[in-house]
Amino acid sequence: MLRLVFVEASLETIPKSIANHPSVLSDAKRRKKRPTEMILDDSKHHLAMKSLEKREKRGRPDIIHQCLLLALDSPIEDLEIFVHTINDIVIWINRETRLPRNYNRFIGLMEDLFKKGEIKADGTLLKITDLSLRDVLRDRKVVVMSEKGKEKDIGSGDVAVCIGAFPHGDFDEKNVELFRELNAEFVSIAKRPVTALYTTCRVISSFQRISP
Amino acid sequence: MLRLVFVEASLETIPKSIANHPSVLSDAKRRKKRPTEMILDDSKHHLAMKSLEKREKRGRPDIIHQCLLLALDSPIEDLEIFVHTINDIVIWINRETRLPRNYNRFIGLMEDLFKKGEIKADGTLLKITDLSLRDVLRDRKVVVMSEKGKEKDIGSGDVAVCIGAFPHGDFDEKNVELFRELNAEFVSIAKRPVTALYTTCRVISSFQRISP
Repeated sequence: MLRLVFVEASLETIPKSIANHPSVLSDAKRRKKRPTEMILDDSKHHLAMKSLEKREKRGRPDIIHQCLLLALDSPIEDLEIFVHTINDIVIWINRETRLPRNYNRFIGLMEDLFKKGEIKADGTLLKITDLSLRDVLRDRKVVVMSEKGKEKDIGSGDVAVCIGAFPHGDFDEKNVELFRELNAEFVSIAKRPVTALYTTCRVISSFQRISP
Repeated sequence: MLRLVFVEASLETIPKSIANHPSVLSDAKRRKKRPTEMILDDSKHHLAMKSLEKREKRGRPDIIHQCLLLALDSPIEDLEIFVHTINDIVIWINRETRLPRNYNRFIGLMEDLFKKGEIKADGTLLKITDLSLRDVLRDRKVVVMSEKGKEKDIGSGDVAVCIGAFPHGDFDEKNVELFRELNAEFVSIAKRPVTALYTTCRVISSFQRISP
């Protein structure tokens, strides 16, 4: 059983502190949404984001979108998927979910999820849980994909593989401490920083049961 | 040297025959573009597309966007990338291109490319060539990723790997004939149809030189 855990995903609704910025308000008006019900998107709210803490890690929902599409596309059967966000929310992704492949539709779905807490259609597809990152890691071997890790085989078997789903920088210090406390193994797949999408590709391929 | 060739990519500007459809005109007005200079997008122009031939294979530029991001993210050094479109246009992609990761920005860039024929910034990044699909395949061993192929190793070395970049259905008959004429090997990676993104993932991983 592979448990994929995307960590510190750059996915959140617009924080109140910037909800009245002109670039947010004009987008909200055009989309007929409340500012704080919209997903933060650096490509639209760049100017508004200047005042945000850790802004270089925020407003990039395209990253988790592409990673989730690739993970869900894989025929791996015994696969679990969790998304931990930059705000410490943990989202459970039903492995059978057919996620919108179009970016703008994905954003609409995420806005729905943050508003309702759950997306249903013949059962639950996506759900904001009350779990912590620790909860989804503590019952199994943990592998953390990190350019600072060792270049070695990603592994197989019952394992939780953590992939950072933010654009720049390192994992938050409190999460690094959690990884260490759980005796996580830090594994690198390349000699230079690589994207979350490429990392997901390599992890998925490594766990692929069907030949080759 | 791996040459990745995305075949029949679902990427084109809006055909004249539907340029006056209301769903196209309203989008053109909003974006302040000429209808025929916009990229066809099923998520926006769905109603207009009803009259198009082979419509199930068209209007899905998200597919080639995600495949290109993944291919360009890979650290494979000796990699060439070509995109053959459903209209038999062949686009050369500079391996060093930093493609927009945001979908809407990618669409804007593709509109620019179809208008100007080339995107430059310190050299050519993307270029519409006068090559045919045959031209980019005929000088090397050809592997075609196809659910109808044999489950076997994708290969390595000097090879052109063809990946269909359309949402449904098979390669066009004339392209299948070309593959056969070139003695292409048909390779499958799963027992059921898989997406272009997942196929790209497996091909990229297979050619990855850096351990593991």
